[in-house]
Amino acid sequence: MKLIKYLLFILLLLGPAALAQEPAPAGYEAAIEAMKSELQNNLNIVWTCVAAFLVFFMQAGFAMVEAGFTRAKNAVNILMKNLMDFSIGSLAFFFIGFGLMFGASNGLFGTTDFMISDVVKNGESASWNYTFLIFQTVFAGTAATIVSGAMAGRTKFKSYIVYSVLICSFIYPIFGSWAWGGLHNGGGWLEDIMGTALTDFAGSTVVHSIGGWLALAGAIVLGPRLGKYGPDGRAKAIPGHNITLAALGVFILWFGWFGFNPGSTTLGDGEIGRVAVTTNLAAATGAITAMIVSWFIGKKPDASMSLNGGLAGLVAITAGCYTVTPMGSVIIGGLAGIIVVLSVIFIDTKLKIDDPVGAVSVHGVCGAFGTLMCGLFNAEAYTCGGDSTGLFYGGGINQLMVQIIGVAAGFAWAFIIGLIMFFAIKSVFGLRASAEEEIKGLDITEHGMEAYAGFQVFNS
Amino acid sequence: MKLIKYLLFILLLLGPAALAQEPAPAGYEAAIEAMKSELQNNLNIVWTCVAAFLVFFMQAGFAMVEAGFTRAKNAVNILMKNLMDFSIGSLAFFFIGFGLMFGASNGLFGTTDFMISDVVKNGESASWNYTFLIFQTVFAGTAATIVSGAMAGRTKFKSYIVYSVLICSFIYPIFGSWAWGGLHNGGGWLEDIMGTALTDFAGSTVVHSIGGWLALAGAIVLGPRLGKYGPDGRAKAIPGHNITLAALGVFILWFGWFGFNPGSTTLGDGEIGRVAVTTNLAAATGAITAMIVSWFIGKKPDASMSLNGGLAGLVAITAGCYTVTPMGSVIIGGLAGIIVVLSVIFIDTKLKIDDPVGAVSVHGVCGAFGTLMCGLFNAEAYTCGGDSTGLFYGGGINQLMVQIIGVAAGFAWAFIIGLIMFFAIKSVFGLRASAEEEIKGLDITEHGMEAYAGFQVFNS
Amino acid sequence: MKLIKYLLFILLLLGPAALAQEPAPAGYEAAIEAMKSELQNNLNIVWTCVAAFLVFFMQAGFAMVEAGFTRAKNAVNILMKNLMDFSIGSLAFFFIGFGLMFGASNGLFGTTDFMISDVVKNGESASWNYTFLIFQTVFAGTAATIVSGAMAGRTKFKSYIVYSVLICSFIYPIFGSWAWGGLHNGGGWLEDIMGTALTDFAGSTVVHSIGGWLALAGAIVLGPRLGKYGPDGRAKAIPGHNITLAALGVFILWFGWFGFNPGSTTLGDGEIGRVAVTTNLAAATGAITAMIVSWFIGKKPDASMSLNGGLAGLVAITAGCYTVTPMGSVIIGGLAGIIVVLSVIFIDTKLKIDDPVGAVSVHGVCGAFGTLMCGLFNAEAYTCGGDSTGLFYGGGINQLMVQIIGVAAGFAWAFIIGLIMFFAIKSVFGLRASAEEEIKGLDITEHGMEAYAGFQVFNS
Repeated sequence: MKLIKYLLFILLLLGPAALAQEPAPAGYEAAIEAMKSELQNNLNIVWTCVAAFLVFFMQAGFAMVEAGFTRAKNAVNILMKNLMDFSIGSLAFFFIGFGLMFGASNGLFGTTDFMISDVVKNGESASWNYTFLIFQTVFAGTAATIVSGAMAGRTKFKSYIVYSVLICSFIYPIFGSWAWGGLHNGGGWLEDIMGTALTDFAGSTVVHSIGGWLALAGAIVLGPRLGKYGPDGRAKAIPGHNITLAALGVFILWFGWFGFNPGSTTLGDGEIGRVAVTTNLAAATGAITAMIVSWFIGKKPDASMSLNGGLAGLVAITAGCYTVTPMGSVIIGGLAGIIVVLSVIFIDTKLKIDDPVGAVSVHGVCGAFGTLMCGLFNAEAYTCGGDSTGLFYGGGINQLMVQIIGVAAGFAWAFIIGLIMFFAIKSVFGLRASAEEEIKGLDITEHGMEAYAGFQVFNS
Repeated sequence: MKLIKYLLFILLLLGPAALAQEPAPAGYEAAIEAMKSELQNNLNIVWTCVAAFLVFFMQAGFAMVEAGFTRAKNAVNILMKNLMDFSIGSLAFFFIGFGLMFGASNGLFGTTDFMISDVVKNGESASWNYTFLIFQTVFAGTAATIVSGAMAGRTKFKSYIVYSVLICSFIYPIFGSWAWGGLHNGGGWLEDIMGTALTDFAGSTVVHSIGGWLALAGAIVLGPRLGKYGPDGRAKAIPGHNITLAALGVFILWFGWFGFNPGSTTLGDGEIGRVAVTTNLAAATGAITAMIVSWFIGKKPDASMSLNGGLAGLVAITAGCYTVTPMGSVIIGGLAGIIVVLSVIFIDTKLKIDDPVGAVSVHGVCGAFGTLMCGLFNAEAYTCGGDSTGLFYGGGINQLMVQIIGVAAGFAWAFIIGLIMFFAIKSVFGLRASAEEEIKGLDITEHGMEAYAGFQVFNS
Repeated sequence: MKLIKYLLFILLLLGPAALAQEPAPAGYEAAIEAMKSELQNNLNIVWTCVAAFLVFFMQAGFAMVEAGFTRAKNAVNILMKNLMDFSIGSLAFFFIGFGLMFGASNGLFGTTDFMISDVVKNGESASWNYTFLIFQTVFAGTAATIVSGAMAGRTKFKSYIVYSVLICSFIYPIFGSWAWGGLHNGGGWLEDIMGTALTDFAGSTVVHSIGGWLALAGAIVLGPRLGKYGPDGRAKAIPGHNITLAALGVFILWFGWFGFNPGSTTLGDGEIGRVAVTTNLAAATGAITAMIVSWFIGKKPDASMSLNGGLAGLVAITAGCYTVTPMGSVIIGGLAGIIVVLSVIFIDTKLKIDDPVGAVSVHGVCGAFGTLMCGLFNAEAYTCGGDSTGLFYGGGINQLMVQIIGVAAGFAWAFIIGLIMFFAIKSVFGLRASAEEEIKGLDITEHGMEAYAGFQVFNS
């Protein structure tokens, strides 16, 4: 901007003389091309920044969904966790994570560009790098905040802080360097082996599954909330305290996803409309099929399931939003809406893992599912980068194999590291609040305040 | 916008052939012109997509306004209706509505371009068409969601689902094809007869009045909520359960309207700032005048009326946001704020139609009012498309006559079709919940859950 | 932004004549330059409009923060004040404020361009001026709405309306003309005396401190809420009624700030990513340090303080978001998070001024602090306009002196005018609600309704 201002100022003072003094480009084509590049670069920056802001706003969506779907006595606590995982995550990613994810790789992770230190003030790449940093920061924050919902109502605040530092500093960026940094950096082992890159355009696996599998590990290590499973082992529903805010949260997330998916082009061009269409269709279909399945199973159209169905569609289409057709997105989103309901029930009643908001099913399971679907639904016309056409579009089994490997790698990395991390936190700091604290509610015991002063709240 | 739509449509029909037929550029002027066209097209796509996302976010605004202004025992139900009318509407519009609205018209409705099937991957027109689809989808969703507020607290969920399919598949798109698709498609009977196009830049009539008159039909067919009118026929106020969320909803809607109105240019150029100014001034003035009138009538400044006044100003300026001056927008918004208060009272106490959130007055009445005002306030400098200057700016009575005909056509179409549709749904599925369900609340009876677990709620 | 404003102003004054005087382009360089200018202008308009919409949305954030942090019995009242200060402020700024702030100055304030009356339809400058108007309107609205929080729970609605007219018509614009209009208008006394301009890129002082010091004056003239200070003079906490909504409000404000700070470039170019990075880092660090300090002081991590810490970081970085490095923003934001906690406690317990939401500390104190920090942290590479490098970057003491004078001028202007205004309102209309009204709650007594019908609310 300074340069622009400077130029403007010179222009104003010197007028057309300044123009005449510019070195003559070799032919007008080069001059036109140069200007086009500059303007398109500016447009890309505007678009990517706006998209980043929308993705940031998803933090508000997560906070409302997680608070709304859990009990009033823990609302302040989960809001604080949402505020802090993003705040701490922003710093951790700036100081450590960005370099690990996007720096020049040693084969396993990046080793340069911490604090985007190589960025100099002048030049297009510097401007762009800051834009890229803010865009990637809000993505890291998304992965981080997924976990709080699955661990709601029983996790020590201090221990959650430690987790927040670790995910944005190391866990998310290192896997990200394999999928987005390393792979597209010429050094990806997956592309080397298979000759094909993983299709995960905006992060069904890189962001959502990683968050979801960490959430799974956290929920397992923590154990269920008191009273969640009766003496007979039967799961008991613990209803959320504010479905209105949960619904608001889902609308905010849907809104923010228009930054998440179309924004991942990081190019202000014609593809963003198409990506917005696939994103919206998958979300809509996911909400509908989840409602239908819940209606069939529970005899009533369930609001929590429908809301999660919309999110499931969004998570699932995140990998293939650029590479599948609108009709493909309807199918992927619709299946995700079915899967999320079955997964929530399965995890709750069969695995007996207590995930208060369904984060593992929405982000882990549907993220993996959506990534796999790219192996089937990648349409020829849309493939980008080093990936290829899916099975249903005549591309053979190759892309599907790559997707399976990528999904498995994501699960292995995040779940194993997650178990190690949460067990380590447990043994060092303790992970779970005391039974007394849990019964009283974490708002009073951890933060010394209640969320709804003046209202009488009855909590089980 | 209309002209653009028309041009776009031509491009859509002729396809890449049209592009190929462009005269070969000669010299640098042509090369510069070509690049300018490409970059401006990209900018238009970025702007229109961002505007579409803002309009999508209005769904959250409607959900909060409608939930907040109604009772706690029906909150889950109305949120589910909001989620589903948009989700189902998105699919219905993709598969059916878009083609009916923007396809090549048989005189009554479009018959091509379902699922934008003629769109190919390559070329500027394809990119633009996806952008246009997402923009039009969120507009259709806006029309659909208006109705739920007027039918709150007593409508069967299943029947509402049926309604949602019908409005976005047929009712909204067919009228839309007359006003925005058909009329400007060379086949418009209104422009043919009058020699002048309807001024309805962003849809005071096409979107808001259509939604409002359908809401009127629905509220009439349903009848009032139990206890709304005493044995003596006097209207009883049934206060909303969360004015804070209703206020949040209005702020969200106001925010989203900056996509709705300025976005309807679908051009990233200098006019969007001007349209934002008229939009904001009308909203602000509407809130103020509604407050003053409510203060005068009820002796206290009423919050519900003031909030609805802001929305009334927004709805009213939607037709003329591009064609009137800032001063014109102050007058139109200010009058809308007065009209909405009088209309709410009249419908509630004289017509004895129970519209829990005032949707008929805000969207139907003020939408019609705002459309009519273009016949008076269209300023010479701003007229666009095939419309003309209004009476107060020396343009004579012609534009006003066209506006009257357009408003009447909108009312006739939506209200009559609405009555037929809701009577048909009533006889096939039943439209109204049982008295027992209504008393207990639709959240428990329809969805098996309550919105505010842990809080004691006293509902009348 | 400042230079652009200046250029804009020149264009505005010279009007179409200036355009006409442009020399005829000769050769393709001029043609390319002309097109570049047109496209970049369009991009600037799109970006600045989007930023303006984000800043508008901050109104929702303020409403949620202020309502959430105060008691349920006054929620309707504070929401109405938020709605009305923006609505009335929009009209006041359009009719009076804009001209005073940006019109040709008589030395003290502008005297032209009311209702941007000199703007004609055609030409780039006209398009830009409307964009500039909407952007400046939402800034004025931000300054206005800060005050309501500090005066919550005890201020007559009618008197608040009077205040709203005065701030957006006169108080904010006149100071603004000194800092942003007048100073860069060639007639700034500060730059004349010191040879250096005030660094206040997006308004830590011009917007936030002005609002904060007016809030201080209002809180002093009003006196504390009943029961706030015991007979022994000890401050008693009066907890807010909905921390969930307060947290939502903070996330909304953070989101909107990405319009506030990066948008203040008013240029769609590479600097916006960098400004987004400094803005986000300062907010994140502020939330973290406020949490730590509150944890240290109160033995628990306090949610209200952490949320206010995020806002404190945002307010503090608003002055220097363009001119400091990312590391500078971490330091400034981190210190602001500490300062806001100490300031809230000091004002509450030592000064015994009752500021229910901490508006004076967040906006007044941290706005002043952030402005001063530019005198230390302005980095050479980023200085723009007429300001210079800070003390820590080898620029000497000069910029710091200018910052001190600017901060002092802001305090003197807003606090003194504020005291005069509120005493005047008090003597003419009365400023404070009666004790009976205050105990009953302003919602029932001023507006005849309650915010949460159906819920039992216990208010002290």
